[in-house]
Amino acid sequence: MNIAYERYKELLCRLADVQYSIAILNWDLETYMPPKGAESRAQQISTLSGIAHNLSTSEELGDLLFKLESDTSLDEIQQKNIYHSLKSYRLNKKYSQAFVEELSRAISEAFQAWQKAKETNNFSLYAPKLEKLVRLKREECTIIGFTGHPYDALLDQYEPGALTADLSILFADVRSQLVAFVKQIAAQPQNEDGFMFLHYDKQKQWDFGLELLTQMGYDFEAGRQDISSHPFTTNFGPKDVRVTTRIAEDNLNEMIWSCIHEGGHALYEQGLPYSEYGLPSGEYISLGIHESQSRLWENNVGRNLPYWKHNLARLKEFFPEPLKNVQPEAFFKAINKVRPSLIRTNADELTYHFHILIRFEIEKALIEGSIEVKDLPALWNSKYKEYLGLDVPSDSQGVLQDIHWSHGSFGYFPTYSLGSFYAAQFYNKAVQEIPTLELEIEKGNMKPLLNWLREHIHRHGKRYTAEELCQHICGEKLNFKYFMNYAQKKYGELYKLEKIVKKA
Amino acid sequence: MNIAYERYKELLCRLADVQYSIAILNWDLETYMPPKGAESRAQQISTLSGIAHNLSTSEELGDLLFKLESDTSLDEIQQKNIYHSLKSYRLNKKYSQAFVEELSRAISEAFQAWQKAKETNNFSLYAPKLEKLVRLKREECTIIGFTGHPYDALLDQYEPGALTADLSILFADVRSQLVAFVKQIAAQPQNEDGFMFLHYDKQKQWDFGLELLTQMGYDFEAGRQDISSHPFTTNFGPKDVRVTTRIAEDNLNEMIWSCIHEGGHALYEQGLPYSEYGLPSGEYISLGIHESQSRLWENNVGRNLPYWKHNLARLKEFFPEPLKNVQPEAFFKAINKVRPSLIRTNADELTYHFHILIRFEIEKALIEGSIEVKDLPALWNSKYKEYLGLDVPSDSQGVLQDIHWSHGSFGYFPTYSLGSFYAAQFYNKAVQEIPTLELEIEKGNMKPLLNWLREHIHRHGKRYTAEELCQHICGEKLNFKYFMNYAQKKYGELYKLEKIVKKA
Repeated sequence: MNIAYERYKELLCRLADVQYSIAILNWDLETYMPPKGAESRAQQISTLSGIAHNLSTSEELGDLLFKLESDTSLDEIQQKNIYHSLKSYRLNKKYSQAFVEELSRAISEAFQAWQKAKETNNFSLYAPKLEKLVRLKREECTIIGFTGHPYDALLDQYEPGALTADLSILFADVRSQLVAFVKQIAAQPQNEDGFMFLHYDKQKQWDFGLELLTQMGYDFEAGRQDISSHPFTTNFGPKDVRVTTRIAEDNLNEMIWSCIHEGGHALYEQGLPYSEYGLPSGEYISLGIHESQSRLWENNVGRNLPYWKHNLARLKEFFPEPLKNVQPEAFFKAINKVRPSLIRTNADELTYHFHILIRFEIEKALIEGSIEVKDLPALWNSKYKEYLGLDVPSDSQGVLQDIHWSHGSFGYFPTYSLGSFYAAQFYNKAVQEIPTLELEIEKGNMKPLLNWLREHIHRHGKRYTAEELCQHICGEKLNFKYFMNYAQKKYGELYKLEKIVKKA
Repeated sequence: MNIAYERYKELLCRLADVQYSIAILNWDLETYMPPKGAESRAQQISTLSGIAHNLSTSEELGDLLFKLESDTSLDEIQQKNIYHSLKSYRLNKKYSQAFVEELSRAISEAFQAWQKAKETNNFSLYAPKLEKLVRLKREECTIIGFTGHPYDALLDQYEPGALTADLSILFADVRSQLVAFVKQIAAQPQNEDGFMFLHYDKQKQWDFGLELLTQMGYDFEAGRQDISSHPFTTNFGPKDVRVTTRIAEDNLNEMIWSCIHEGGHALYEQGLPYSEYGLPSGEYISLGIHESQSRLWENNVGRNLPYWKHNLARLKEFFPEPLKNVQPEAFFKAINKVRPSLIRTNADELTYHFHILIRFEIEKALIEGSIEVKDLPALWNSKYKEYLGLDVPSDSQGVLQDIHWSHGSFGYFPTYSLGSFYAAQFYNKAVQEIPTLELEIEKGNMKPLLNWLREHIHRHGKRYTAEELCQHICGEKLNFKYFMNYAQKKYGELYKLEKIVKKA
């Protein structure tokens, strides 16, 4: 037994216990907390966060990590754990107390200003706070350090190893290929989806959603679903992984896509090895890979015909009236309408990436200092015109729509697109390796897919980087062509496009 | 501004943040946690408990407290805070890491053994673990220190200032007066309560319970009710005070009494001063005083006629069928049946105290070493025969019924009786001071009572000890005669007793 390694594991479990406790406090805050509890809760979370920070930067942990870094008796997984922990440790140590507090204050102020600005459609209320926050985030890039673009430093916190240069190439492909493709679609007659907006009883939707989660393989003994205003997945270890959903009685889409999407996230967490609790080997790789799991289930599985060939019949048992004349093919069309729209979170799976593209371009420019906060509304609006062909009627529906920047989360958005692109590539591989995959889905049997994901992705924790994982599974790194192929095949048929554009 | 005092406040708020976080984790564990989450949750709670212990015994806190102890510039409330904090600090410092761990292990083992022993009705499975635990609790008495009886050391943790000698006198009164009185009642014909056990729909009971809580003045913006297998109240500061209930469709009593009882606890917590978060001045006095608040609402208010003169009509709207011929007077009789029974938690408000009396006598003897664990079943059964006139058919329904000892909670039980006795004395005073109190209750107006409790009890936090509070409110210390007077008046009428015994 390696005493130093055992002690390192103890310290990491302790840290995870505190971090998961914070997650429990946050889960409760979003689901059940009574309104007057908010102030004390913020304080409780802040105190636990401070404790977690102290644990993550303790001298004892540092000494152990430096010692274990050169311990050649460790096996591969142990060495990777030390690598990741040391990286986190060094990163955490770079932040001075003063900087953390200043950033935390700036975020708090920016968030409050953003809420007011969005409510009153007044960007100028937000601008000075956002300016300060951008200045601090740029300072943070220097604190963290970078070799290429300063934005790399921020990206790395969400998508370790991601580089601005690579993403610029990727998003150039998105722009050139997807913009053209969506224009082709826009020229076609639109599919009918009015029946999705009839009356759908809340409780019945809830029950159907639980069935979908169960069918996916979500373990309700190790998780639960609740209602929150914004759906999310959280976990307190791999044996307590919770999802939330929201239900609109006049829009069947809300519940269905949030259930499947969060279910996909949750299956990843439930599939992480419990024996590695608190260690990097028990944690997800990156936000992009996490998102690949939600998007794969949501889009590649859930917005596909085989899924509804099986599940529509059950849905019709819940809602015989509004769906009485709807066949799986019509349902498939209705859930795959492509239409440029203003709000990212309501976008279809193709135009969604224009929203991300725009945010990526803006973030990159803000962080490198080539644009200023005051330029944002005009820039935003011109990009929405250029990529989506839309006039933005107000900043509330434009540059103020997302919470992310007010939270200081620069570098987060690109992981949404990465998730979809990884999902397409992984799903393509899964279908190749399991030729009967979609036939099984058509029978309501999701096990082959889940087993494949468990085997190739979930169980590995952070053993591979995102790039290594992709290489390991697909024999090549992330390649946008799989997403374009998927899009062209699916939407080419759905919209009867005469000529399928192939550029990738 | 007193810098040392401000820093002391900061440290105590920090400690409270961690302690309330533990409470949140426990609340979730009892209400919503999926079963497989139990193992990690136990670990998370244990880690936070260790952190709380470290904070509560930190050198910085100690130095501040010793300094502030002699700071004459502090006002009365500040001085009391320092007094209480120093007492806790000194107590916490007495425990060695080794003892805490040994005790914690012994409790864990005793608890598991108790569960099995109760399930299989086999006291011998539990006996050796309980023996070890009793040995450690006796050792704990020495660690804590005591001047009179060793049991004083344990009592003080639940009911600061309570002494075995005083409780012995009190419970001697209980025995002499209440045993005789209950025998008088037992000789009378029993009241009819069959309608309480018809079918009562769960959701309707739930809705009615929420109305009762609202009527009491429970603030649902600063709390919520959920379901758990054992009803409890918990809080994460005075602005997030939660209750749980349980509902049996074949027994209307379950929900009604748990709702009102927990509501009484919760009103106390919601009435503590928010500005004193984390400080003794923001905390409840003792378990006995806490219980006085639940018992006052449950028994003195809820099991009284004026309450049902108002609320029965509403209850009948929920349940017209099973209650169709029931008048308030008949309902009042049904909810006040006195009948000796085996299980403490199902006991009526009079015979309940025999259950406590028995536990008090046994605990005292165990801790002083005059009896041994192996004597427990026979002793238990003989006391149930003596005080309640019952033969105990099995240890599962006898000495194994309560969880408390397996948790190491010796000294806890007496606070249940203290709660009822304080409640009777406080309620008597409230009626004296507000002559229209019961008329208002009969109108469904609980405000005068709640205001009185807020004014005299809730807002003071730990400003007074239990004894001082009672003196302050009633002009005398705890006096059992108020409970006996209440019992004799109420049950004398209910059971048409010819001669009301007056001994107190």
